[in-house]
Amino acid sequence: MINIAVLGYGTIGSGVVEVLDTNRESITKRAGDVINVKYVLDRRKFPGDKVEEKLVSDINIILDDPDVSIICEHMGGTEPAYTFVKSALLKGKSVVTSNKELVAKYGAELLAIARERDLNFLFEASVGGGIPIIRPLNQSLTADEIVEITGILNGTTNYILSKMSDEGLDFNTALSNAQQLGYAERNPDDDVLGYDAGRKIAILSSLAYGMQVDFEDIYTEGITKLTDKDFRYAKVLGAKIKLLASSIRQDDQVYAMVAPIMIKANHPLYSVNDVFNGIFVRGNVIGDVMFYGRGAGKYPTASAVVADVVDAAKHLGKNIWTIWSSKKLELTDINQVKHRFFIRLQDYAQSHKELVRELFGEVEEVVVADVQNEYAFITDLITEQELNEKKSKLPNVLTVIRTRF
Amino acid sequence: MINIAVLGYGTIGSGVVEVLDTNRESITKRAGDVINVKYVLDRRKFPGDKVEEKLVSDINIILDDPDVSIICEHMGGTEPAYTFVKSALLKGKSVVTSNKELVAKYGAELLAIARERDLNFLFEASVGGGIPIIRPLNQSLTADEIVEITGILNGTTNYILSKMSDEGLDFNTALSNAQQLGYAERNPDDDVLGYDAGRKIAILSSLAYGMQVDFEDIYTEGITKLTDKDFRYAKVLGAKIKLLASSIRQDDQVYAMVAPIMIKANHPLYSVNDVFNGIFVRGNVIGDVMFYGRGAGKYPTASAVVADVVDAAKHLGKNIWTIWSSKKLELTDINQVKHRFFIRLQDYAQSHKELVRELFGEVEEVVVADVQNEYAFITDLITEQELNEKKSKLPNVLTVIRTRF
Repeated sequence: MINIAVLGYGTIGSGVVEVLDTNRESITKRAGDVINVKYVLDRRKFPGDKVEEKLVSDINIILDDPDVSIICEHMGGTEPAYTFVKSALLKGKSVVTSNKELVAKYGAELLAIARERDLNFLFEASVGGGIPIIRPLNQSLTADEIVEITGILNGTTNYILSKMSDEGLDFNTALSNAQQLGYAERNPDDDVLGYDAGRKIAILSSLAYGMQVDFEDIYTEGITKLTDKDFRYAKVLGAKIKLLASSIRQDDQVYAMVAPIMIKANHPLYSVNDVFNGIFVRGNVIGDVMFYGRGAGKYPTASAVVADVVDAAKHLGKNIWTIWSSKKLELTDINQVKHRFFIRLQDYAQSHKELVRELFGEVEEVVVADVQNEYAFITDLITEQELNEKKSKLPNVLTVIRTRF
Repeated sequence: MINIAVLGYGTIGSGVVEVLDTNRESITKRAGDVINVKYVLDRRKFPGDKVEEKLVSDINIILDDPDVSIICEHMGGTEPAYTFVKSALLKGKSVVTSNKELVAKYGAELLAIARERDLNFLFEASVGGGIPIIRPLNQSLTADEIVEITGILNGTTNYILSKMSDEGLDFNTALSNAQQLGYAERNPDDDVLGYDAGRKIAILSSLAYGMQVDFEDIYTEGITKLTDKDFRYAKVLGAKIKLLASSIRQDDQVYAMVAPIMIKANHPLYSVNDVFNGIFVRGNVIGDVMFYGRGAGKYPTASAVVADVVDAAKHLGKNIWTIWSSKKLELTDINQVKHRFFIRLQDYAQSHKELVRELFGEVEEVVVADVQNEYAFITDLITEQELNEKKSKLPNVLTVIRTRF
């Protein structure tokens, strides 16, 4: 029997306990031993709940129990999660976590501690919910040099953007719609401003390139400024606007950004709609692969956590090698990154057209039948710096959206 | 240094040697040691090739060399591949293979031999080319009971079907088009009759359910009877016709089939076009996930092989547990499986409509503007047995295609 402790009995923690119970037989077979939840750490009481007898509020009871070999952390945030997880590793316990803040910030350090002690620190659930992506990056794409990871990594914003695209809703209506369905939190900033996706692409980039990518260094733009008109232009172009979290290697330089980007039907992420996530990976040998599924939710996330528990159980006393050094990867200055930019200007005036031609040369004009008094176009491939220089000379810019076509 | 031998220096074997060279640095880092190709087994000579000095034509040179710890088999077919691979395992060498015939037929036995001897038998490249699917099934989806695997597992047929759908080509034109591009072999039977996809779904099903699924037991229908008219009906329905390889568990019974099936845009495999493969997996906890990428080709396949070599190198002396017993899984009689069937009858006659209503009740009629003298409809959900009984009473049936909507 392998004893584990679950820290935090919220949505994910209770999902983990439930899944271990539901699929007990097959999990035992795959883990090679029975997985037993010995403790659940939570300050709350859960009268009548099946874990009632296992609840403790003092982490030291768990840390000091030599029978506990694996800890599942689902408290969220960096403290006290970081202190608890680090203490657990130092006490010889492997750790599984779904906590992206913890992994993005302390992943390299916690992996190093685990490695030194022949333990494991596993975090499949921290990115993409149930979608297997961490393990494939670590163990399946090992023959490749990764040259691009681009993901739809936040289900909340993808749901909002899908509604804006499909139903013509404006941002606020789509957001409150998402909040009513429980897809968005009451304070949605972390999602809609792109920070959540930023932490996740930081984790994936760190694994892909083997060095520390700090999410604070990643250029991040949210979806709050998009309007229903932007989506009408997108439709005319046969495009969708998606919040893409991207990390791309060019000539041994890596840039990373989170921003709304237009993609067309030939992009593998085009069909990833509603609350689903998709992660596109390009390797120098394998070419393009894509992973798709539910990026959040109690059960998909619990599935990823329990799969990590099974892996930790199979690897007691043996570290699963993960390359993520604490050496910082200096990202390329975003100003040097090139895109074709979709730009909308207020007023449809001949002088606008002439100015645009003067600044950008020949552009692709975009016309939406019933949108008047605007001039919209797509530039050639230019850097952010060029864009900003030229944009400052344009009057009344309504929108700038990067495109990947 | 870890010495390996490559059996077969064709497309994949030479790709493996090339990838090991191209990404030497990162592969060494991930494997924890230098991977050295010591021998290449091939009867042919390759004058001037970089492996010229490593070529041998006698397998015993490789089997008897204790310095060789991993064998990569890319000869194809079951013999002499089976004899060579089994001998290698019995001599204490781990084996990596891209050979789906070998894995489908002897997977359980070879895995058991590897397990007994603390070796590994790995075959990520045998299904889906470079797409990570074997390892995710074995190691990532371990918290789940798999209830469905449905894949577009054959790039040749998917290319042909995409051309028929997009360009209105008939089967023979699309096939010779594929042959000219090197996507189809001169004798295309193994692909177009569905046998290749059948072996692959047999492998995935064996892994998902942990028991032997014999591909000869899988109901298999190819794409040779599809006509350009079928695709015009599909278009009217907003559907695509895809060669789906499916294995579905219902009430502890599993059925498996390979057949052309109509799916609509809400199915994750709808957007998997041209030579790409996609594999959709449904678990009882994780819900739906999908894996997408190039299912064949020199480099994607070599990427999967080399990733397996890296894994074998990291696990020398330690078996990676894979559940696939030799106990045979008895598949459900296909006659009990239900679908909605799309049926085309020659001649548009009132008597047809009446007969159809009499046999099938209310049906969904399908009309294509410029296709005359036909009566087409979609049945309710009925079993194959009901379909066959009723079909025998219908005159001049042109087409029957299963649908998943």
